[in-house]
Amino acid sequence: MNERKILSDYVYTMVASLVQAGIKNVVISPGSRSTPLAYAFASTKQLTMYRQVDERSAAFFALGLAKATAKPVVLLCTSGTAAANYFPAIVEASYARVPLIIVTADRPHELREVGAPQAINQPNLYGAHVKWSVDFPLADGAAPTLPFIERHLARAVAIATSAPFGPVHVNVPFREPLLIDFSNELPTTTFKHSDMGQLIPTDDAQQELSAILQATKKGFIVIGELALGTDLAVVWEFVRQLKWPTIVESLSNMRASIPEDCLPYIITTYDAIMKSEDFKTLVQPETVLRLGAQPISKFIMQFISKSQPNAYIIIDEDAMFRDATGVSTHFIHANIGQWLTQLEITNVALEKTYLAEWQKANELAAMHIEQHAEVAKDEGAIVSRLLKLIPNGSDIFVSSSMPVRDIDTFLLATPKDLRVFANRGANGIDGVVSTALGLSQGNQRETYLLIGDLAFLHDVNGLIASRYQQCNLTIIVLNNDGGGIFSYLPQSTVEAHYEDLFGTPTALTFQDVAKMYDMDYIRVDTIDELSEKFATMKKQPLRLIEIFTDRAENVKAHRKLWQRISTELKA
Amino acid sequence: MNERKILSDYVYTMVASLVQAGIKNVVISPGSRSTPLAYAFASTKQLTMYRQVDERSAAFFALGLAKATAKPVVLLCTSGTAAANYFPAIVEASYARVPLIIVTADRPHELREVGAPQAINQPNLYGAHVKWSVDFPLADGAAPTLPFIERHLARAVAIATSAPFGPVHVNVPFREPLLIDFSNELPTTTFKHSDMGQLIPTDDAQQELSAILQATKKGFIVIGELALGTDLAVVWEFVRQLKWPTIVESLSNMRASIPEDCLPYIITTYDAIMKSEDFKTLVQPETVLRLGAQPISKFIMQFISKSQPNAYIIIDEDAMFRDATGVSTHFIHANIGQWLTQLEITNVALEKTYLAEWQKANELAAMHIEQHAEVAKDEGAIVSRLLKLIPNGSDIFVSSSMPVRDIDTFLLATPKDLRVFANRGANGIDGVVSTALGLSQGNQRETYLLIGDLAFLHDVNGLIASRYQQCNLTIIVLNNDGGGIFSYLPQSTVEAHYEDLFGTPTALTFQDVAKMYDMDYIRVDTIDELSEKFATMKKQPLRLIEIFTDRAENVKAHRKLWQRISTELKA
Repeated sequence: MNERKILSDYVYTMVASLVQAGIKNVVISPGSRSTPLAYAFASTKQLTMYRQVDERSAAFFALGLAKATAKPVVLLCTSGTAAANYFPAIVEASYARVPLIIVTADRPHELREVGAPQAINQPNLYGAHVKWSVDFPLADGAAPTLPFIERHLARAVAIATSAPFGPVHVNVPFREPLLIDFSNELPTTTFKHSDMGQLIPTDDAQQELSAILQATKKGFIVIGELALGTDLAVVWEFVRQLKWPTIVESLSNMRASIPEDCLPYIITTYDAIMKSEDFKTLVQPETVLRLGAQPISKFIMQFISKSQPNAYIIIDEDAMFRDATGVSTHFIHANIGQWLTQLEITNVALEKTYLAEWQKANELAAMHIEQHAEVAKDEGAIVSRLLKLIPNGSDIFVSSSMPVRDIDTFLLATPKDLRVFANRGANGIDGVVSTALGLSQGNQRETYLLIGDLAFLHDVNGLIASRYQQCNLTIIVLNNDGGGIFSYLPQSTVEAHYEDLFGTPTALTFQDVAKMYDMDYIRVDTIDELSEKFATMKKQPLRLIEIFTDRAENVKAHRKLWQRISTELKA
Repeated sequence: MNERKILSDYVYTMVASLVQAGIKNVVISPGSRSTPLAYAFASTKQLTMYRQVDERSAAFFALGLAKATAKPVVLLCTSGTAAANYFPAIVEASYARVPLIIVTADRPHELREVGAPQAINQPNLYGAHVKWSVDFPLADGAAPTLPFIERHLARAVAIATSAPFGPVHVNVPFREPLLIDFSNELPTTTFKHSDMGQLIPTDDAQQELSAILQATKKGFIVIGELALGTDLAVVWEFVRQLKWPTIVESLSNMRASIPEDCLPYIITTYDAIMKSEDFKTLVQPETVLRLGAQPISKFIMQFISKSQPNAYIIIDEDAMFRDATGVSTHFIHANIGQWLTQLEITNVALEKTYLAEWQKANELAAMHIEQHAEVAKDEGAIVSRLLKLIPNGSDIFVSSSMPVRDIDTFLLATPKDLRVFANRGANGIDGVVSTALGLSQGNQRETYLLIGDLAFLHDVNGLIASRYQQCNLTIIVLNNDGGGIFSYLPQSTVEAHYEDLFGTPTALTFQDVAKMYDMDYIRVDTIDELSEKFATMKKQPLRLIEIFTDRAENVKAHRKLWQRISTELKA
């Protein structure tokens, strides 16, 4: 068999194996060494191919696509630093538990570590930050090769999509020549299917959990960002059965489309009410049960930590103890699944007054937050206003630092169908534009990105994707000229070096970016213009709303609101 | 002692140790966890602080600074994906042998791998791509701590600046609170000084080398990019003694300021003349001696590989065998130093006609290249023209892919003082704008960046640096709307998917980028406009010359030139 036929069979077997394992989307960055696979991906009609020149942005785009679809996405790049550019998104995917199949083309062994161009040490390139890494054999035509790569790719997808989801790395060497024979049909694979098991607690653990939950007089549930693909119906059913105050982070997506009978238990304003010492004394818990990631709110986490509940139970699909409070007492390694609603919960001992205290505080805080939104002009009020303007059925991607916190404060329980996403695995401000664009490609919903000026600038290259595929995204930049979150930290009390090291204003505005990328550009200087300008947005593929705000004013307004809520809770 | 005093002593001891070890430049990206060190760096007058929000660009900026100064540069970022963004530049620094001291702030142990925000697994984050990685202790006030970090930082700098130079990683955990007491004076360090030895070949190896060089009738020297800080005077003296044809890559910086008596031996047009089979037959070598990295030119490397010289001797400061030809016969692990000029070279056996053949071919090719530059209108001719326009005493940073190859072809031996730099460690197109900006900050010379449209776009964020420090750089973008180098590869013979996967045109132009960053923007549509427009450039801190070219035309023009040279060499 000739070299070219061997190479063609090899790459089409790779593609067939990935398709067989359920892969639908591939994100490719241009390069030479990856040519055989790029050809095979591009010529396979079962796959949708996305392109992005900047590999850092490409990987975040894939991350967004995987978040939208709860399915693994394949990345492909050439050898060299191209692969290193994937690293930030891989780290995020690792902590955010997002399945990515990272395929890096490599030089053959004789060109590794010998000073050949674009050849770097790629096996295990991503270290501890992928779930698995494998270095493939060359397309050598040997009998074991194709059956091996079939099973190794099935394995790669199986590992990426077993709990906890995460990234895997497949390094594939290619020797020149790199051209292949195109094929319209994929080869039949001999490997058929992997089944990803469900992790369920032991009977003993279920009984202990039931016993604690039923005996608790004062307790609450905390729900952070849940694993991709979690069935919310199960969680709602559990809330319905337990009837405890349930603290839901915006990223749990349990603040919208709330079942009517669950509504009384949903607490959204915890970050605000946890600033009141009186209230915290009133609601000291015996038991706290947490599902999903640790919430963003430092105040609720500090409250749990200081309360030292008799039982702080964490249910998590990863054996890693995801608990920074240091007061957890029980760890249940399990997926959120039907078992949760089949626990014996018959005599709930929770004191009615305990629930009532939470409900009262939550209502009061919600009222003040809504009032603030009516009268104030800061970023918080702007976010409130945006949440009213954004239509039913939309997804909102929020950047780390302030936007995610503002959404967490100002998104109250809503009858609208809104979903909120963020990169909260490692909470970086990198790759946000790309992740939002990826999300918007995969979610089949109107999508909005809420982002600060530094994060927007950091991933302005995310917009390159719009040169290669049809996009539909509204980007709302809150431009406060620098790092807004630092104004809330102790650093802001020290004048020396503050703007140099933390504020870091660039004095940049983004109408030129909008022009470069053919975006509809809308400048908003005051909150009063927002509604009108929002309504008259053009239907271009990309829209950029730049809203100018003031860092100092934002802090003042936030603090005033919190102060008011604390005062009322004391009264 | 109180916590704050302990923390302050810790970070100022770090800074004092780095200053003591010769560090002058620090590149900082904003963040919270890094606050104590950022304060200490910012308040130390012995250091120059640079800032860049995008950590990927920050690391390449530091790389450029280190290249300009041949001294290690310190990077500082906060915890989380910020650190992962350094990775591409670290990989490049590793292969390009550039000393970087990467300092990543980290969370304390109790916040690692517990789901805390912005906490990722940072120890050994960069795997095999740093020379050394160390996880520091907390500022704990214990007696061994300060003496330990003093020595460990001296060690970090020593490792980064011992042959081969490279990046090292220092991970520094900080526990809150992060504020320090500012100090105007650095503490006295108890560790004084590390001496980096010089690596010299054994007497036996020197004798063997002398014997081979003296006995060789047909041989040539190949000089690629040399180690940072190499004393060119030594290399010139060696050329002067040996009198062999000496192939000098543009990145060796031996095509400019050539000593008069060395000029006859300098061969610059090897890439063109190596396309002639007749010439190659004529100059089959017995011996090839290589200093520095493998040259860019595939043709010269293939010639060496096919020639299988009796002796192919590589002198390299790294024990890694940097030879992708597979025909090396001798490896000498040594720095380029005085020893090279003290070899016994008395009776050089090289045939006069052998040198003459190289000289004749080189002159002929040079003439054709110069003629081409007069009449053609392609990128090659544009690069030739630019080399005439760029004033004496300048540095040129060239992007990977086509610009570095065009410079290598069209930069002939010149009386001008021009230096050429590129990121040829891993040959990526990433981080190029930042590296050039870093170079321009450290070199005290007029600096020009020659770059294609995709590479410019890839690191357009490099320009953010101009918001934080005074810049002086002329960027020349050769905009051929996509990946030009692929037109020279076999992929260009396959029509299917070509533009999708390789050409990848964005249809972007960069006047909006220029506007955003207050750059003087000059649009050049034809080579004829170039000289005039170049002369009327404004003296803004950043200038962008965008030259529009055509990918297909460039290939045609190059091939025509090579064909003409080959034909002439046959005649």
